Amino acid sequence: MSVYYREVANEVDLFTRCYEQQLPLLIKGPTGCGKSQLVAHMAEKLKRPLVKVACNEDTSSADLLGRFLIKGNETVWQDGPVTRAVREGAILYLDEVAEAREDVIVALHPLTDHRRELYVDRTNEELVAPAGFMCVASFNPGYQRGFKELKPSTRQRFVTLSLSYPMPELETEILHRVTEVDLKTCQRLVELGNKIRGQRHLELKETVSTRLLVHAARLFKSGMSLRQACLFGVGQCLSDDVQVLEGLKDLIHLSM
Amino acid sequence: MSVYYREVANEVDLFTRCYEQQLPLLIKGPTGCGKSQLVAHMAEKLKRPLVKVACNEDTSSADLLGRFLIKGNETVWQDGPVTRAVREGAILYLDEVAEAREDVIVALHPLTDHRRELYVDRTNEELVAPAGFMCVASFNPGYQRGFKELKPSTRQRFVTLSLSYPMPELETEILHRVTEVDLKTCQRLVELGNKIRGQRHLELKETVSTRLLVHAARLFKSGMSLRQACLFGVGQCLSDDVQVLEGLKDLIHLSM
Amino acid sequence: MSVYYREVANEVDLFTRCYEQQLPLLIKGPTGCGKSQLVAHMAEKLKRPLVKVACNEDTSSADLLGRFLIKGNETVWQDGPVTRAVREGAILYLDEVAEAREDVIVALHPLTDHRRELYVDRTNEELVAPAGFMCVASFNPGYQRGFKELKPSTRQRFVTLSLSYPMPELETEILHRVTEVDLKTCQRLVELGNKIRGQRHLELKETVSTRLLVHAARLFKSGMSLRQACLFGVGQCLSDDVQVLEGLKDLIHLSM
Amino acid sequence: MSVYYREVANEVDLFTRCYEQQLPLLIKGPTGCGKSQLVAHMAEKLKRPLVKVACNEDTSSADLLGRFLIKGNETVWQDGPVTRAVREGAILYLDEVAEAREDVIVALHPLTDHRRELYVDRTNEELVAPAGFMCVASFNPGYQRGFKELKPSTRQRFVTLSLSYPMPELETEILHRVTEVDLKTCQRLVELGNKIRGQRHLELKETVSTRLLVHAARLFKSGMSLRQACLFGVGQCLSDDVQVLEGLKDLIHLSM
Amino acid sequence: MSVYYREVANEVDLFTRCYEQQLPLLIKGPTGCGKSQLVAHMAEKLKRPLVKVACNEDTSSADLLGRFLIKGNETVWQDGPVTRAVREGAILYLDEVAEAREDVIVALHPLTDHRRELYVDRTNEELVAPAGFMCVASFNPGYQRGFKELKPSTRQRFVTLSLSYPMPELETEILHRVTEVDLKTCQRLVELGNKIRGQRHLELKETVSTRLLVHAARLFKSGMSLRQACLFGVGQCLSDDVQVLEGLKDLIHLSM
Amino acid sequence: MSVYYREVANEVDLFTRCYEQQLPLLIKGPTGCGKSQLVAHMAEKLKRPLVKVACNEDTSSADLLGRFLIKGNETVWQDGPVTRAVREGAILYLDEVAEAREDVIVALHPLTDHRRELYVDRTNEELVAPAGFMCVASFNPGYQRGFKELKPSTRQRFVTLSLSYPMPELETEILHRVTEVDLKTCQRLVELGNKIRGQRHLELKETVSTRLLVHAARLFKSGMSLRQACLFGVGQCLSDDVQVLEGLKDLIHLSM
Repeated sequence: MSVYYREVANEVDLFTRCYEQQLPLLIKGPTGCGKSQLVAHMAEKLKRPLVKVACNEDTSSADLLGRFLIKGNETVWQDGPVTRAVREGAILYLDEVAEAREDVIVALHPLTDHRRELYVDRTNEELVAPAGFMCVASFNPGYQRGFKELKPSTRQRFVTLSLSYPMPELETEILHRVTEVDLKTCQRLVELGNKIRGQRHLELKETVSTRLLVHAARLFKSGMSLRQACLFGVGQCLSDDVQVLEGLKDLIHLSM
Repeated sequence: MSVYYREVANEVDLFTRCYEQQLPLLIKGPTGCGKSQLVAHMAEKLKRPLVKVACNEDTSSADLLGRFLIKGNETVWQDGPVTRAVREGAILYLDEVAEAREDVIVALHPLTDHRRELYVDRTNEELVAPAGFMCVASFNPGYQRGFKELKPSTRQRFVTLSLSYPMPELETEILHRVTEVDLKTCQRLVELGNKIRGQRHLELKETVSTRLLVHAARLFKSGMSLRQACLFGVGQCLSDDVQVLEGLKDLIHLSM
Repeated sequence: MSVYYREVANEVDLFTRCYEQQLPLLIKGPTGCGKSQLVAHMAEKLKRPLVKVACNEDTSSADLLGRFLIKGNETVWQDGPVTRAVREGAILYLDEVAEAREDVIVALHPLTDHRRELYVDRTNEELVAPAGFMCVASFNPGYQRGFKELKPSTRQRFVTLSLSYPMPELETEILHRVTEVDLKTCQRLVELGNKIRGQRHLELKETVSTRLLVHAARLFKSGMSLRQACLFGVGQCLSDDVQVLEGLKDLIHLSM
Repeated sequence: MSVYYREVANEVDLFTRCYEQQLPLLIKGPTGCGKSQLVAHMAEKLKRPLVKVACNEDTSSADLLGRFLIKGNETVWQDGPVTRAVREGAILYLDEVAEAREDVIVALHPLTDHRRELYVDRTNEELVAPAGFMCVASFNPGYQRGFKELKPSTRQRFVTLSLSYPMPELETEILHRVTEVDLKTCQRLVELGNKIRGQRHLELKETVSTRLLVHAARLFKSGMSLRQACLFGVGQCLSDDVQVLEGLKDLIHLSM
Repeated sequence: MSVYYREVANEVDLFTRCYEQQLPLLIKGPTGCGKSQLVAHMAEKLKRPLVKVACNEDTSSADLLGRFLIKGNETVWQDGPVTRAVREGAILYLDEVAEAREDVIVALHPLTDHRRELYVDRTNEELVAPAGFMCVASFNPGYQRGFKELKPSTRQRFVTLSLSYPMPELETEILHRVTEVDLKTCQRLVELGNKIRGQRHLELKETVSTRLLVHAARLFKSGMSLRQACLFGVGQCLSDDVQVLEGLKDLIHLSM
Repeated sequence: MSVYYREVANEVDLFTRCYEQQLPLLIKGPTGCGKSQLVAHMAEKLKRPLVKVACNEDTSSADLLGRFLIKGNETVWQDGPVTRAVREGAILYLDEVAEAREDVIVALHPLTDHRRELYVDRTNEELVAPAGFMCVASFNPGYQRGFKELKPSTRQRFVTLSLSYPMPELETEILHRVTEVDLKTCQRLVELGNKIRGQRHLELKETVSTRLLVHAARLFKSGMSLRQACLFGVGQCLSDDVQVLEGLKDLIHLSM
């Protein structure tokens, strides 16, 4: 099944050039703005296999590079996703790379500069990435967790693309294409999303993603009233604060 | 044995639509308001097996996804509850999801968006959830432990339902149905519960749950005086502070 | 050998009713007030086996539920104390439950509500507790370590009994029965205990337990002077502060 | 070889009575005041084997209770020191018990009250201590590390003996007996020790132990000048602060 | 393929002398100033194999020295990179040595002083480094993370070389040689780099490295406008702060 | 090859007497003042094997005492360095003992008092050290890391020797003997060293060690100018602060 993707800026062009020039790419942007979809779309377009790694602070380098497993009475080596990506010349997607422990990131340094090498210490193997291999990472600077920033020595290995939410017409079209809900309703949902995005005084940790609008559209499509669909699919998902929730509820009642 | 469940808002409707639309659902609400019962009831209603996971900060992803065990002189793979739930197309219930470590939650991300995939790295297997699979999570925003909030990138994957304690008539009926204590006594217990719930100056960490009223009703049914049943089953369970306990005791003496 | 136990409040009655109604029981009270003795006594009275677990922050859920052991060239499963208690329909006593890590406590949640189930993930076994099974926990709110409180979602699963030190006549009798020291001396020891308990300005972390009085009585019985027995068995055990120790010494010299 | 021990207070009497009455004993006192020697002496006197455990924050309960070892192709159980002490009816000496992790201490609770039981969870064995078993612990309240205190529920299980440095005549005699240096020199060393112990303004973390005086006597006996012996064996061991060291040097020069 | 390297100061001379005199060398300097390239160049020039270790806080001494692996039914020893470097008389390059845990560094102490020994405790082997072995380490003092400094006892084992960014003419030449972009454009890129390096009020964590200029040149070479190449390859990589990014954008628009 | 060692104070005498009297010795002093060389020299002089342990916070007691290894299909015990030293009657040198974890240090307590015993819990073996065994430890009080001090109960087990840098004539001679550089140049290097040691306002974390002067002499011997040799071998090694480095550079330019 082909991934539906609609370009926001000229990110497809930049991605393609980085691929051709063998430069690693960092995609920064808020939750649900389409970072993962872009990568899935590009893998399809460039006809490369895609290997995704959801980075988190408990992933060890063994999880990424591989480990020995005991099978029957033999020890067999099993490649981790990164090693697999290098062998296959895949697009390696490190989702939320800033969440990873530094040892994991540092182990990937030789892979992300001119060397394009991966050293798998446990098997004492040094792999050179084939031409088709590309390393892409994403991170969300909006969390503002200062202690989870990338070190400059990591950051400066990547060409950087900054993504944000799509413009209204585009977001409406995306909503319509993904959910098959009528264009008029999709437009009203996008309007609601942008109204909430404009309410800076609500001090939401993160604002309405396209994903939330998709959820509301789907609930509506299943027969729920639009107002209820927005309450359960958008409002309740943005805060636990009673007063903020009241504000969101009012906004939804006025709009729907 | 069928689970007894009485709808509070229109949560059964929302749950059903999410199931049909293949949207994950987050249920938020205070201790003992019936989150687990709702899920058990819906699993029965939707005729899906139910797999429960009590989330906590020491659960590893191996606990959830599975591990290799040495049996005799062979290594056999044993599915963890999440993997089992995906294979069986079950309802997966992540109880108190905010307690889980991020690595566990992040590993479930591909399962909770449009991909509905689970990648089991140890076996290098990629499972796609069947239509019957649904992911439900619960959490209690009342604990106010800021450092145990869900990240927006997790939160925005779920349609959100907010549950609270049932209205007096409904809670009385529930009490009566569950304990078989006479309706009159059940009503007095619910009145006591609501009186205590109203005492904001007591600064209780969490207020009286329906579960506590059930306990008091059961102690009464076993032959204890109602006053004592409320002291042991409700009052003593809400605080360790001597003055607060005196206040609760007075309230119970006045009411019973 | 039968456990000697003298009822302080009507704790035996409450314990019995909880047992009959299949409600879990939490016993709170200061060090050495007789929490463990009550449980031992009730197990005997109710003719149930007793399984004790001393909770602490390093106990893992494997310690409680069980683990696989390699014996010869086979892997055999060994039940942990909780699993054993459920299988045997025993009284499970979780001593100082607030010391346990949350993962251990949360794993016991389904065992302490209406489900009365224990899920042993490593063997993928779901045990339902037989009628004779009862879960009892103890904790000491006096330590005032705010960060070691029980979560409301745990706390509200238990009917709660608050125990304290027995009244003078009763404590004298207990001392006499346990140590076989003459009643007159036991009375003087209890008087000393209550004098020290009244010295709030000494700011002792925890005051004189019945256990300390038993120790002093035993040292006296072995031929030591009562004064020395109280110094070594009571005074020195309550503080390391030179001035506080001087105060305790004066009190003992005046009383003995 | 018999352990040389000279009684300071009437600690031998108290130790003997605790042994007879099967009461655990806690010995508190400063570094090098003879806590270990007392225990070694008593083990000899009471004709019981002695099992010593140097407690520290990294000792696991497996270190104390025992573990399974793979020998050849069989798994054999090996008792830890505590289990061994219980089986042999030995005197178990927990040196610096406050350094141990709580799980280790809590696991020993049933061994230190009327139950005198040890539950070895890994073998599912419940040992009852024979009459000859006694549990002795030491700790040094002088370190003033508030966060390494014993919990009252542990503390109150032990009869408590407070030891300090011996009186001058006695310390002189001990020095002479242990090192075979002439009595006159021993007396001068003890005088120096007491002078330094009196210098509270030096704010030493811990003052001169009998052990340091023994070292100085031994260096003197090997042919070094008394002054140098005191500098290397006493002065340099008490501080790294240049000014404090100057002060100690002056004191030694004036005295020797 | 030969490594392209252009000398900045007289670092090649110093490196050679250290190699001849068997002195370890520490190279300090900012991100991307050419530390790794220098080492690669020297290994080639001195005809020694090069063993690189990317230091990080999770590397254990087993990762560096080696470990036992179970292969089939035998245990075989596998050298880690450091052991391998010593055996082969290679140049050992500890990249970002200040990131390593102290145990790792301390284990290398005997290798970095007159002893030139490596003790592999797990195999109980003591290796003496052959004449061709040299230990080189790099670190970046610019991170200003005080808690990640090297201990003096480590620092003073190394002769120290301080590298910085090359002078404009040299940097232009490097850019041209590496990317094959025309000299004129390379000069404009270096000018932009130095303009940004001069903007101290932007308070960038780390400034423009030669590597970033290489990236911009490559994007330009692939057909992108120079302005866009600088935005994606330089500007976006230096900060996530909206205002700082605006400033950088203005600078790029003015210059390109 | 014989170790070159030149006595600074009368440390050889003190070391010899401690060896004869079987007293453990602690050597304190700044980086590179010759602590390790003294120990190596004495081992040679006393004709005892030398076992060195570089202490650090990650060394486990298994690293020191030994561990079971699986070889083929058998488990074999392998002595750690401490156990080996005790068996062989060697001089055990614990370098930077204050860096070790307390459990490691505490496990060595019985070895460093009159008992001279080592208890290897994993093999249940109690070794008594032969006459030739001696325990020597070093530590550097200059780091002033208050939290890495030795506990008094450890400290008072050791006779203590305080070493510092040798007097100018002696240091010159050492330099000349070790590097074979002419005496005149060595003298100028020592003068530079003492000038820098006198610059307290530079607030260097640790000052110039003899080792740094040896490095500068070696670089000079390889043909580098004395000024450059001092810049790379001394100045750059003492600080990363630009202003401090300027000050050091000026001093070197003025002196060389």
